[in-house]
Amino acid sequence: MVAVTIWNEFRHERADDAVAAVYPDGIHATLADALATDHEVRTATLEEPAHGLTDDVLASTDVLLWWGHDAHDDVDDAVVDRVQERVLEGMGFVPLHSSHYSKPFKQLMGTTCSLQYREDGGTERLWVVDPGHPIADGLEEAIELPKTEMYGEPFDVPEPDRLVFVSWFEGGEVFRSGCCYRRGKGRIFYFRPGHETYPIYENDAVQRVLRNAVVWAAPTKGSPRTFGERD
Amino acid sequence: MVAVTIWNEFRHERADDAVAAVYPDGIHATLADALATDHEVRTATLEEPAHGLTDDVLASTDVLLWWGHDAHDDVDDAVVDRVQERVLEGMGFVPLHSSHYSKPFKQLMGTTCSLQYREDGGTERLWVVDPGHPIADGLEEAIELPKTEMYGEPFDVPEPDRLVFVSWFEGGEVFRSGCCYRRGKGRIFYFRPGHETYPIYENDAVQRVLRNAVVWAAPTKGSPRTFGERD
Amino acid sequence: MVAVTIWNEFRHERADDAVAAVYPDGIHATLADALATDHEVRTATLEEPAHGLTDDVLASTDVLLWWGHDAHDDVDDAVVDRVQERVLEGMGFVPLHSSHYSKPFKQLMGTTCSLQYREDGGTERLWVVDPGHPIADGLEEAIELPKTEMYGEPFDVPEPDRLVFVSWFEGGEVFRSGCCYRRGKGRIFYFRPGHETYPIYENDAVQRVLRNAVVWAAPTKGSPRTFGERD
Amino acid sequence: MVAVTIWNEFRHERADDAVAAVYPDGIHATLADALATDHEVRTATLEEPAHGLTDDVLASTDVLLWWGHDAHDDVDDAVVDRVQERVLEGMGFVPLHSSHYSKPFKQLMGTTCSLQYREDGGTERLWVVDPGHPIADGLEEAIELPKTEMYGEPFDVPEPDRLVFVSWFEGGEVFRSGCCYRRGKGRIFYFRPGHETYPIYENDAVQRVLRNAVVWAAPTKGSPRTFGERD
Repeated sequence: MVAVTIWNEFRHERADDAVAAVYPDGIHATLADALATDHEVRTATLEEPAHGLTDDVLASTDVLLWWGHDAHDDVDDAVVDRVQERVLEGMGFVPLHSSHYSKPFKQLMGTTCSLQYREDGGTERLWVVDPGHPIADGLEEAIELPKTEMYGEPFDVPEPDRLVFVSWFEGGEVFRSGCCYRRGKGRIFYFRPGHETYPIYENDAVQRVLRNAVVWAAPTKGSPRTFGERD
Repeated sequence: MVAVTIWNEFRHERADDAVAAVYPDGIHATLADALATDHEVRTATLEEPAHGLTDDVLASTDVLLWWGHDAHDDVDDAVVDRVQERVLEGMGFVPLHSSHYSKPFKQLMGTTCSLQYREDGGTERLWVVDPGHPIADGLEEAIELPKTEMYGEPFDVPEPDRLVFVSWFEGGEVFRSGCCYRRGKGRIFYFRPGHETYPIYENDAVQRVLRNAVVWAAPTKGSPRTFGERD
Repeated sequence: MVAVTIWNEFRHERADDAVAAVYPDGIHATLADALATDHEVRTATLEEPAHGLTDDVLASTDVLLWWGHDAHDDVDDAVVDRVQERVLEGMGFVPLHSSHYSKPFKQLMGTTCSLQYREDGGTERLWVVDPGHPIADGLEEAIELPKTEMYGEPFDVPEPDRLVFVSWFEGGEVFRSGCCYRRGKGRIFYFRPGHETYPIYENDAVQRVLRNAVVWAAPTKGSPRTFGERD
Repeated sequence: MVAVTIWNEFRHERADDAVAAVYPDGIHATLADALATDHEVRTATLEEPAHGLTDDVLASTDVLLWWGHDAHDDVDDAVVDRVQERVLEGMGFVPLHSSHYSKPFKQLMGTTCSLQYREDGGTERLWVVDPGHPIADGLEEAIELPKTEMYGEPFDVPEPDRLVFVSWFEGGEVFRSGCCYRRGKGRIFYFRPGHETYPIYENDAVQRVLRNAVVWAAPTKGSPRTFGERD
């Protein structure tokens, strides 16, 4: 059992009927249902004090999932710094979809994390390019999503340590959709699927990826990180 | 000026009228024309003594391009070993298309280099996923090839040091089409395009990639590789 | 419990009293004792039929440790090919010390795997440079070995996917002593310590590394590796 | 000729006679002399308006060297953001020694960039672990520096794209002293040597590394980085 905290901006679902129809209790609730079968799950949202990410919550989180889109700038820098610090100490971090532009992901990557996009509801096929990776455990050779927002290259991130998924889009684009990084002792997995107007987090294979990612990103013990002056 | 040797199996062109119509003087001749504007180019083919790759030829080659398909097994292991040795000493190596299955590439990678394929003549679009790479110098954001054989993932190679191109295929697949490796002092660039029945090596952007790859793969001086017992 | 097979050349111990004094039952027996606390362990040696590595043994091995030195050339190429094949299918592979020159490691790396060495019995200190890596679980910041054979750079291997240990040697050299690779679905961990004339495999921290490495290198399920023609 | 800007904090040299004795005109002046043989060199220091790094200066800089130690916090965040932006656009960045803690390096890495240190004036030997790298062009197998401040692992940076140097220290430590990264279109080379109280930048081999690094880090043309909504 991994201690998972799912963070959601939780704005679209309350402001937009089309989104509420897909995720009536919020994207975080759907994600929580998908993970609770295997893991110990809490949720946190933007409007809570400290965005629900107090020092206590972060200190007891093994893996933090993050979904944001419209309100990236409303996330407090002190919370962002604390998330970064916890990742370097070993907490796993799984930014989803439009969270490529979230403050913690950009701060951990050191790049703009920009990309191309088109909201056309076309088909996406995520190919596993690293079939030996534990995040691919139990998948078929590809995951097909009938309606998605397109994300296209170039994706301004550091070259991933391991690239697990590459997406094919009906409209003619490709995207590195599953990117693994280590920063400090922490593991980071960016996973592309998940637009607010499509029920992508209801997809079985997507849920499988998320459960696998939580296991992969969970902290390991490692050895001491001792810094500073040495005798 | 880089000293380039272009190696071609040169069987399809002599056995198959459809191929001869596309590459009447052999694939190597078309590649030589594409590179001779910038580089000093020689060619070598399977039927020559030592497949045209004598020790003298290899010793004076900065970058070796390789095109093979039907006759991989006819390549002499001693020549393969000498190619590998020269790469480790610094010679660049650029296997093209079906040369993913060539002996020197497999021997340098240590994997099967297997993939999926379908000869359907569909459209391919090669996206630059690393726009800062010198092999992408002067390209647009993608290269479109109207008719190609499809190659699909998984591609059983080591994770590339740098991934430059990812292909989108009309039929629904993706492929890591431009993969950079270093082995010893040598640089290796696997580049996917180039089926024998399509005039892909006449394409301006493909030719640009090949000229860039030759510059990128050319040996640099480096420092000594001293091995063995040390005082 | 991981199914471990420990392969040992087992020649020095029978031919050289100084080695027999350190490893009276063979290096494989000492390694087996170190791993049997956590894992299911078998051993195999050069003189057995198929070197003890029959298809059945390899098929039921999760992780293969390898110790060779004097008799690399006596290992049958068919066995080497089968080891490589099993690694690509997912079997873990942990070559130790002088096994940098073993046939399976060289075949999987595609390089000479050469290095510098000096048998001077000086002190080695292995620094953990990746304290977040599971192979470092439970270690101190460094492992000190009072008497070792020195290995020095350059080490002619592909740049590791992850570098876990760098050794400092009393005589003035450094070495990348813990190198992680993935090839196909399989995980490879080269670990430097272990000369036949020093009781290095009795060291608690070294044993801890080996137990960790076995867990890290164990196969994971992943997704299908389907190759060949596609409809 | 590469357009180089050398940035120096320039405080120690004016406040401390021992430093002034080693670098009477400032570390930047010594670095400028070392590079001016091959490149077009400007210098900039902390006390100048915009720290000497106006938009015009940065826009016309191919490669920026950076030396800071005592005054990292005095560097204006707007300048740091502009340096980061220029690196992502292609400008090379070469932080030296204590600049591991500089704001632009930390912002580009996304980690603390912490390490261990001891100012003991012991000997350092930098081993080339990647003899095929252009930054090693013309070097011997190692660079020996008779008196240095020690830096020890762990070094909290992302795993380098290429590791060129590993240092051995007389006192028993090792350090990854030459680390290559790409971020966006820009190349970054962290190089450890260079304490203010030792004449390390007068060392011929160190100067050779710096000249090589400037050539390696210079921008290449690449292909467009187009972001945002796509038709």
